[in-house]
Parts: sequence; C-alpha cells; structure tokens
Amino acid sequence: MGTTLAVLVENKPGVMARVSGLFRRRGFNIESISVGVTNNPEISRMTLVVEGDERKVEQVKKQLNKLVDVIKIIDLPSRDSVERELALVKVKADAKDRSEIIQIVDTFRARIVDVAAKTLTVEVTGDDEKINAMVQLLSRFGVEELVKAGKIAMVRGSKSQGRDTSARPPLAP
Amino acid sequence: MGTTLAVLVENKPGVMARVSGLFRRRGFNIESISVGVTNNPEISRMTLVVEGDERKVEQVKKQLNKLVDVIKIIDLPSRDSVERELALVKVKADAKDRSEIIQIVDTFRARIVDVAAKTLTVEVTGDDEKINAMVQLLSRFGVEELVKAGKIAMVRGSKSQGRDTSARPPLAP
Repeated sequence: MGTTLAVLVENKPGVMARVSGLFRRRGFNIESISVGVTNNPEISRMTLVVEGDERKVEQVKKQLNKLVDVIKIIDLPSRDSVERELALVKVKADAKDRSEIIQIVDTFRARIVDVAAKTLTVEVTGDDEKINAMVQLLSRFGVEELVKAGKIAMVRGSKSQGRDTSARPPLAP
Repeated sequence: MGTTLAVLVENKPGVMARVSGLFRRRGFNIESISVGVTNNPEISRMTLVVEGDERKVEQVKKQLNKLVDVIKIIDLPSRDSVERELALVKVKADAKDRSEIIQIVDTFRARIVDVAAKTLTVEVTGDDEKINAMVQLLSRFGVEELVKAGKIAMVRGSKSQGRDTSARPPLAP
C-alpha cells in the first residue's frame, strides 16, 4: 500500500516525462498513475501511488514543487479520501457458466460491457481489494485479459482539492 | 480524438520515465495515460491516448518496440474496442438541489460515493462523451472538483490482447 498524491500540472507536452524522470532519479517506483484533464482544460491532474515511507514521500513532494509545471500537490490520506479504481476483465464464459458469472458480476455491482461467443467483458469499479476479490472469483472460469486504470482519489467531504501541501515546511528528519 | 494504444511493459522502476521520455523527444502530447498491473504482477499495462496522424503513431510504435521494457504493443481502434473512463465529480448540493442531482446521477447510471453537508461526490464510468455530458448537466449546481482516470480499453470479443503489432512491418510512407 503506497502513498496517494494528486498533482495538478500544466497540460502540455513533456510534463509527464519531467515528473516521471524525477521519480526515476529518486529511485521511486510508481505503483499506479492516472492522468486526465480537469474541468480546466489547461490543467491536468495526475494521481500517483508511490512506494516509500513518509520521509521519502516528503522528499519527492519537495522535488515536485520545484518543477515549474507543477501547480499544486494534494495529499490524499486514504482514511480521508474517496479512492476509486476501474478495471475491465475479459472472462471465459461458456453457455453453462454464464448465469453464474452474471451472479458474481451483480454481487460486485459490476457491469457487463461486451458479450462475445466465448467471453464476457466486465467493468468494475471500487478499491483494489474489491476488484481483486472479483477477479479472484472469476479466475476459475479463466481470466483472459485484465486492465486496471490507475487509482484516482479525492478528499472526502465538502472541502475541495484537499490539503494544499505546497507551502508546507518539510518534516523534521 | 487521439489514437489509443495499450503497451505491456515490465513492472519496474524507470519504465514510465523511459516511455514518457520517448514521447517527449518525439514531440507527442499524451492526452491520457493510465498504468496498472495486469493479472501477471510482473507486467504493467499502459493505456495511452496520443495525438497525431497514423504515420506519426506508427513511428512512435516502432520506437516503443525498441525499448527493452516493452513486451507488446496492442492497437485499439475505437470501433473494435471497449473503451472506458472513470471520473469522480464533487458537486455542490444544497438540500433543495439534492433530489434533482440524484435524478441526473441515476440517468447516467452513475453512483454517489460520498455525501457531505454541502456536496455530493459522484462516480461515473463510460466514454468521454457520456462523462462530459453528465458534468455539463451538473455544472449549473457548481462542480467543485473533477478527476478523470486515463482511458482504458480492450479489444471487443473473444480475441485476447488484440492485434499484436510488434512484428508488423512499418506502413509505407
């Protein structure tokens, strides 16, 4: 379980490379990343899940703040955040297995988004645990393909964009 | 509307930086990116939406195939693919507006994932058009925050992992 950060950046070429280059130089592995535009088309929001302890994450945040393309960094502690992942799962589905697969899909409030002769494709949202549980249950039919979107997250409640950490002093070592 | 590609890569540090560095050097803007592990934890799948005409995209694919971390590139033409995006939308919701907001959410088969005194947070999946339509309808209440996950996509039907282009000859110029 890594640390989740949202980074608001300018939506222009090269930003992605600068951010991921920074992570590489610091030796951080990015567990998951998701980038999309916000309601302002000039601003993209990256949601990153990074491995490492708090002190390491603080270092990365300081480095990120130095990049000119970075507008704001938002901390997303999991207890205060709505976290969501999306996955598409293509599962083998013989005629005899279909009703059982559909039951599993319903249990997880997932949705069938494509039906073919030998497979069903299922869309599921939720946290990692829920998605993994569904994939686990479907695995005995045969999971042909699995795609996960990187996690996205938002601070719970009415406060928008979470705690702004850009002006925060670094943690004491 | 860019071109959607899935790239299977080794799940290790620095891969992200090498891939996005390649895009920067070629001057390509990445419209959307989403990275997550597959059912094999050693392999990550990036779904990229890139701007540019077919010839440019073919060039990028050739370059990607030269990276040692790239295992496979999958073409995802939108007519043959299931494409999905995920968004979280935090919308201002006074007591008097709640029922109307809930109606919109139901119409789009979206879900309310967080309720606070002054806001509702809504999870919606679908294509870009559907998500934008919902955000548009909610905008008159006030959209406080919007996060989109990068698009993910999968080839329709029973064929797994789509057309393998790694061994394809380059297009004639």
